Amino acid sequence: MFFNKFIRSLNPYKVSSHKAWDYTSDPHMLKLDWNEATIQPTPLVSKYISEFLSTGRLNWYPNVDNTELRLAIAEYVGQSIDCVEYFASSDALHEYIIRTFIYPGDKVAMIGPTYDNFRAAAQSVGADIVHFKLSKDTKFTFNKDNFTYFMNKEMPKIVYLCNPNNPTGNVYNYNLIEQLLRKYNDVLFVIDEAYYEFTEITASDLVEKFDNIVICRTFSKAFALASFRIGYAISSRHNIEGLRKVRNPKNISSCSQLAALAALHDISYTRQYVQEVNESKLWLVDRLKDMGLNVLGYEGGNFVFVDFGEKNREIIQKLENHKIFIRSYAHVDDMETYSRISVGTLSQMTIFLNVLVDVLDEIA
Amino acid sequence: MFFNKFIRSLNPYKVSSHKAWDYTSDPHMLKLDWNEATIQPTPLVSKYISEFLSTGRLNWYPNVDNTELRLAIAEYVGQSIDCVEYFASSDALHEYIIRTFIYPGDKVAMIGPTYDNFRAAAQSVGADIVHFKLSKDTKFTFNKDNFTYFMNKEMPKIVYLCNPNNPTGNVYNYNLIEQLLRKYNDVLFVIDEAYYEFTEITASDLVEKFDNIVICRTFSKAFALASFRIGYAISSRHNIEGLRKVRNPKNISSCSQLAALAALHDISYTRQYVQEVNESKLWLVDRLKDMGLNVLGYEGGNFVFVDFGEKNREIIQKLENHKIFIRSYAHVDDMETYSRISVGTLSQMTIFLNVLVDVLDEIA
Repeated sequence: MFFNKFIRSLNPYKVSSHKAWDYTSDPHMLKLDWNEATIQPTPLVSKYISEFLSTGRLNWYPNVDNTELRLAIAEYVGQSIDCVEYFASSDALHEYIIRTFIYPGDKVAMIGPTYDNFRAAAQSVGADIVHFKLSKDTKFTFNKDNFTYFMNKEMPKIVYLCNPNNPTGNVYNYNLIEQLLRKYNDVLFVIDEAYYEFTEITASDLVEKFDNIVICRTFSKAFALASFRIGYAISSRHNIEGLRKVRNPKNISSCSQLAALAALHDISYTRQYVQEVNESKLWLVDRLKDMGLNVLGYEGGNFVFVDFGEKNREIIQKLENHKIFIRSYAHVDDMETYSRISVGTLSQMTIFLNVLVDVLDEIA
Repeated sequence: MFFNKFIRSLNPYKVSSHKAWDYTSDPHMLKLDWNEATIQPTPLVSKYISEFLSTGRLNWYPNVDNTELRLAIAEYVGQSIDCVEYFASSDALHEYIIRTFIYPGDKVAMIGPTYDNFRAAAQSVGADIVHFKLSKDTKFTFNKDNFTYFMNKEMPKIVYLCNPNNPTGNVYNYNLIEQLLRKYNDVLFVIDEAYYEFTEITASDLVEKFDNIVICRTFSKAFALASFRIGYAISSRHNIEGLRKVRNPKNISSCSQLAALAALHDISYTRQYVQEVNESKLWLVDRLKDMGLNVLGYEGGNFVFVDFGEKNREIIQKLENHKIFIRSYAHVDDMETYSRISVGTLSQMTIFLNVLVDVLDEIA
């Protein structure tokens, strides 16, 4: 009775299946459903947090302006410290972007199917969501002319663009992003670079020239820190100041700040993991194609997007019986036959592939 | 240029001085400025997190529906599991309450001076803030008749009431809260019980009878877990469902969930600390009164609110020279001569008092 009208009609962000959690302590299970890293983070993370547990001030509020962390992020990104800010996850950053820039009734354009959190956050404050649809018929490729037509028709206030896109893997190159920023200079482009490390394609230096871009990054993927919920924004000084006005700076827990700092102090650990994933991804894609499967999305992040045909649900279920968890898209329009598989190390992908072969034989 | 009009005119929540952080590793400093617990949490916290660091899945997203934690909270509160939900701090909960219940232009009433985060969150989504002022002339006491007049005049959608109030220590008893809920049954009362453990006065069972109440609680005060940012809501099933629609359930980090669970598994540790604080608070108040100081607020949480007169700023500065940090209210209208002092153990308060006596002598 007390809910505002946005919430009464809100279609909330839905987290998908959490079944893998029932097997947390099973060393033989494979969690390939949430695009998390499949290995633990650098041992520095445990080291820093253990030190904090024994000599830190657990009872104190977290550092509200961790300059060391901001400097480390700025250095990693190659931008000025004034152009970056950390948040308690890139999901939380989405919410702060929405709250900073959206006025009820503003249009938010989603290029998708894509990661759904931004849409839900925008809708919850009364934004009007419009979709630029990547079509199954064209294998979910991005068509620039169609997008121009869409933009002229819809004139959104914000465009959310996930680069590379989850789950279709579209990679939007630097020049395209720059053209969009220039052409639609009164539109704010929110570029979600959650999977940046796997492509190293980024629009980060465009924040020096353009005010209409906010980049979202996370420590949850390549850095293997999803349990800690920490991410960061890259944008113009002016936009970062606006985001700072809205966020409560107390809200990033001390352990999460330490975990991010540890990851940035051992970048080579992450680089090595990324390289391994990128290699095993190509290996996996070759094998899947050899098996006659239609594979998409592999130019993007740490995942592949596979068309399993009408037996999609059955395959997912049978993999689960082997404690292998992949992400079903059976509930998404035009993607009913697809599943997304997070890519880990070569040995993990070998296990996955062997089981998949058995499963496909079984149901053939 | 891209900010919405709410943000352009927003007066943000300001975190106060963070100077104490420069002395983090100094065992002799006293941080009495943010009402944190002055001791470390139960050793179970370190135990649970150490186990997680060595055998847990740091690379996975946190549990999105930690039933064990919700059950532990429900048991602690004495309510059904459907009437509680945890959030990544009670500050974050404030933001979700605002986003669930407020429509731009709705009136939000603050009974204050009080904790300012709810006001900032409400203003950031376009709420119209009205203040029911606790007056210096009446030593910041709450006058029911004046409040009735205020309510009839302003007719707010939400009333924020901090019980006990920070920093004035007003305690609103159960019967008063019940009367308010009944009388203003179309007004949502947000009751912030951050300091509940120190008074054990709560409106929690009123969520069974009334839909117009949401209670905010935190693990940052009595439980000594401020660094972890975790809190919870108590409300009707229906309201909890609404809050769940807006929040992203991935956003509470694994370490924070474990810390809260550890604290609830060793409640006697916190109870003992609370008892010690309440005893040393009475001792401290007596001494301060003996010194001729006007002391308020001590019926509430783990703090006292002291009128140091015109030399307030000077006293704060001199205490800082001794690495003792208290909270200045010199910047708040009608409270220019006041400071808030967090109360810890008897031995800590003895140290504080001895230094205070020296400082007062020095400037006499």
